[in-house]
Amino acid sequence: MKNKKVAIYDTTLRDGAQAEGVSFSSLGKIQLARQLDAFGVDYIEGGFPGSNPKDMAFFEAAQKETFQHAKIAAFGSTRRVKTKVQNDPIVQGLLQAKTPVVTIYGKSWKLHVKDVLRTTAEENLAMVSDTVAFLKDNGKEVIFDAEHFFDGYKHDPDYAMQVLLTAQKAGADTLVLCDTNGGCMPNEVFAITQNIQEATAANLGIHTHNDAGCGVANAIEAVRAGAVQVQGTMNGYGERCGNCNLTTIMPALQLKMGIACIARNQLQHLRDLSLFVDDLVNLRSDVRAPFVGHAAFSHKGGAHVNAVQKNPETFEHIHPEDVGNERHVLLSEVSGGSSILLKAQEVGGGTATKEETAAILKELKALEHKGYAFEAADASFRILVQKVLNKHKPFFALEGFRVVVEKRGADEPCISEATVKVRVQDTVAHTVAEGDGPVNALDGALRKAISPFFPEIENVQLADFRVRILDPQEATAATTQVQIESSDGKKTWGTVGVSENIIEASWLALLDSVEYKLFMQEEEARKKK
Amino acid sequence: MKNKKVAIYDTTLRDGAQAEGVSFSSLGKIQLARQLDAFGVDYIEGGFPGSNPKDMAFFEAAQKETFQHAKIAAFGSTRRVKTKVQNDPIVQGLLQAKTPVVTIYGKSWKLHVKDVLRTTAEENLAMVSDTVAFLKDNGKEVIFDAEHFFDGYKHDPDYAMQVLLTAQKAGADTLVLCDTNGGCMPNEVFAITQNIQEATAANLGIHTHNDAGCGVANAIEAVRAGAVQVQGTMNGYGERCGNCNLTTIMPALQLKMGIACIARNQLQHLRDLSLFVDDLVNLRSDVRAPFVGHAAFSHKGGAHVNAVQKNPETFEHIHPEDVGNERHVLLSEVSGGSSILLKAQEVGGGTATKEETAAILKELKALEHKGYAFEAADASFRILVQKVLNKHKPFFALEGFRVVVEKRGADEPCISEATVKVRVQDTVAHTVAEGDGPVNALDGALRKAISPFFPEIENVQLADFRVRILDPQEATAATTQVQIESSDGKKTWGTVGVSENIIEASWLALLDSVEYKLFMQEEEARKKK
Repeated sequence: MKNKKVAIYDTTLRDGAQAEGVSFSSLGKIQLARQLDAFGVDYIEGGFPGSNPKDMAFFEAAQKETFQHAKIAAFGSTRRVKTKVQNDPIVQGLLQAKTPVVTIYGKSWKLHVKDVLRTTAEENLAMVSDTVAFLKDNGKEVIFDAEHFFDGYKHDPDYAMQVLLTAQKAGADTLVLCDTNGGCMPNEVFAITQNIQEATAANLGIHTHNDAGCGVANAIEAVRAGAVQVQGTMNGYGERCGNCNLTTIMPALQLKMGIACIARNQLQHLRDLSLFVDDLVNLRSDVRAPFVGHAAFSHKGGAHVNAVQKNPETFEHIHPEDVGNERHVLLSEVSGGSSILLKAQEVGGGTATKEETAAILKELKALEHKGYAFEAADASFRILVQKVLNKHKPFFALEGFRVVVEKRGADEPCISEATVKVRVQDTVAHTVAEGDGPVNALDGALRKAISPFFPEIENVQLADFRVRILDPQEATAATTQVQIESSDGKKTWGTVGVSENIIEASWLALLDSVEYKLFMQEEEARKKK
Repeated sequence: MKNKKVAIYDTTLRDGAQAEGVSFSSLGKIQLARQLDAFGVDYIEGGFPGSNPKDMAFFEAAQKETFQHAKIAAFGSTRRVKTKVQNDPIVQGLLQAKTPVVTIYGKSWKLHVKDVLRTTAEENLAMVSDTVAFLKDNGKEVIFDAEHFFDGYKHDPDYAMQVLLTAQKAGADTLVLCDTNGGCMPNEVFAITQNIQEATAANLGIHTHNDAGCGVANAIEAVRAGAVQVQGTMNGYGERCGNCNLTTIMPALQLKMGIACIARNQLQHLRDLSLFVDDLVNLRSDVRAPFVGHAAFSHKGGAHVNAVQKNPETFEHIHPEDVGNERHVLLSEVSGGSSILLKAQEVGGGTATKEETAAILKELKALEHKGYAFEAADASFRILVQKVLNKHKPFFALEGFRVVVEKRGADEPCISEATVKVRVQDTVAHTVAEGDGPVNALDGALRKAISPFFPEIENVQLADFRVRILDPQEATAATTQVQIESSDGKKTWGTVGVSENIIEASWLALLDSVEYKLFMQEEEARKKK
């Protein structure tokens, strides 16, 4: 299996765009194609020319680009029933796309020939043969996607095989076995692919979907059985449960199975590429995604953290940096002293003694019992450490705040006003602000109060605000946990506040956010000296 | 393979809680255990007694429950190095949990014995043997989790096998092969499991993680090779990339492979169970999740929608209703209309005409666009229907409310006070109340205002209160959705409110809750006449 090479065929721009919530702009399509080329994929399927004008615009733009490594493919289908191939509008669209590679899908499941195409088995074979031969005559590299191949093979192996052999005879360069409904089991994919490899000796490709949670495993099994091309999408985007996830299978092939597909130095950009794609379509990235997710190398249990410190191999199947990811230590009630120590180092709190670590752990557990969670609140954790070690020095002191929310009549707007009174050294600042809701007003008043003393606070933006009711059965008197993520454009930090009162919980998280920023500022100034 | 039976071992409460962002309250743990039992899983691992007080609280509460089908398991480890088993605090904790089943993990990878335990290969075997035998002597069903089994076996097959045989000899009822680092490939899992099955003839279990995207496939392969117990978590929660996802593997085994694990009539509640668990830990459900995701049977491509209409088998690998899911196609005015009609009948709004249905649909879509969600808010939906049909008659009119939250000094308590002014027929009620937080105060003042006119309102309890920030990137100015569940001891109903202002969103949900109660009361009185 070692030294084998597998080609990566990316169909994010076409099959990926079938996903609920995914759509690309024309510019976005070109941007992604450039990134995919730089990363090192072998084929980029750009769209279905003729199906919509955006796809044709991509192919026109792509002709002006120079790709280093990847070949651009246009996607379409075999000619229509009882149509001359040269007159078929889809086939004409494929030629107009002017790509070196054309991928066409054809039916290989008799159920589809009968119920969807509503034609005969023979006419379907002629459609495959005519279309492949015509595209080859026009100088294209032709990839034949045998749609529903595995279901078709299970239903009628002879006919499914006949379809493949017809495409092969007409000159197709690669025959791709598709599990279009995504319901196959890995052992079925292995056995069927092996049969086909033995019968055809063709270049085989594999195209899987994730409807039974086996999209990646099925493609891996096909590669083991002989496939040399893997079709999939970035982050597994695709119709229903998605396609084979390339961000998973590329490192699995390259790093775990020793099968060359993407150069190792490129693979170190995998997490960046994954985040770029999510960003492009404005989807939240999957924290649990294999290899590239934020949590993929996060360790929470105390025993695990302890072991990873002793030897990372104990709880990590690859090195996070090989895919551009990093290790994170999470704090929770199951954390032990070693997590605390590591985390204190990670957040820059320096080294603590054994006694100090024990004191931090004790305070942490007490706060977690109250409903605090520090997993996403590094900044609050750092302030906690400072407080326990008596190194915390507040930049200002709260004298008081008041929030008023008022509505006068069912159709009147709801007004929120907050006042804040703080003491900065010897000066009292007393400010008021309105806002979209009480927390927004409070945030406004606090900024007004302290920005004359600390103008850097004006760069801080709140990037994320989450509210969680911890004991919802207590209903409106329940404990509320507020998590805030703040950013100054360069760095991002998380803080947390807990109270029975949602306003107070928000206040506590806001306070930590501001203090952390000022603290970072001071530290940077100290370093410069 | 048909007619084989596999036991489902759920570790959501223990290994699932290792996930970033997942934590359960003590009450939440019991609620989930009840749901899992009703659904039909065989084992429920409740936690690690001794590691934290919340887990022990669960086991105490579990002793008072009657489970119909599931056995509760306590999780722990083998005794410590050079400790007498009866004196080991973890082993003592396991007995204190008073569960019929105890699951212990032991090391089977020499690297861990050396680098993590820092002991000898022989002492590790003694630790396994002593602990299993002691727990068997205490009448427990003992499940032995061979941690890092596959990595250990690849490294030193003889030693890994020795560990298993030691546990078997000491009386372990099931030997579980764990891919703790989640990096194994499906074919490795199959081959190794088959070797073990041949060598031991033991009851084998499989515990996989998803670090290479093969968590489910690996467990499937182990079952094919002989495993009769599958360990996993609901929605695949778990450390790093998560555990084997039970919501995927249960239908895969039962519906696709013909292996009995969960009765088919129970499997129809799978999507509900999946949503319940996400809701319990306040995580957004994965729309692309196999079988249970919202998009799992969504058809976007025109050709696919068309084909599915002709014959669902063409693009669906199972029937969505078999897992409690449903097909989604691009909603036409007509199909949308029929679901609205159904829903309106379901919540007792009576039959509506075609025009009325269209008007309800329009209003519903407008509100959903604003951030409303009616899945758990039947009462708000009913009030919406009444409003659209001009059948809504308010019991009282809001003249105004004001909420004040005030804190005077960092260590002073935060005071919440609300005033409410409503008109009931010709009388104005103007009341004030304090509360634990602003919403609690508002709730108190509203009840005070209307209970003299509608004393039945005093029986209404708020059973659940949830807050969701809909566009968290807008930070503190984000849109807030508040969901309230109310109960009068007999009936339970859900309401929803949305606003940029969390107080107003809560007010809207409170208002619907009270109106719905009064409306139900009136209807009952009418029926009695």
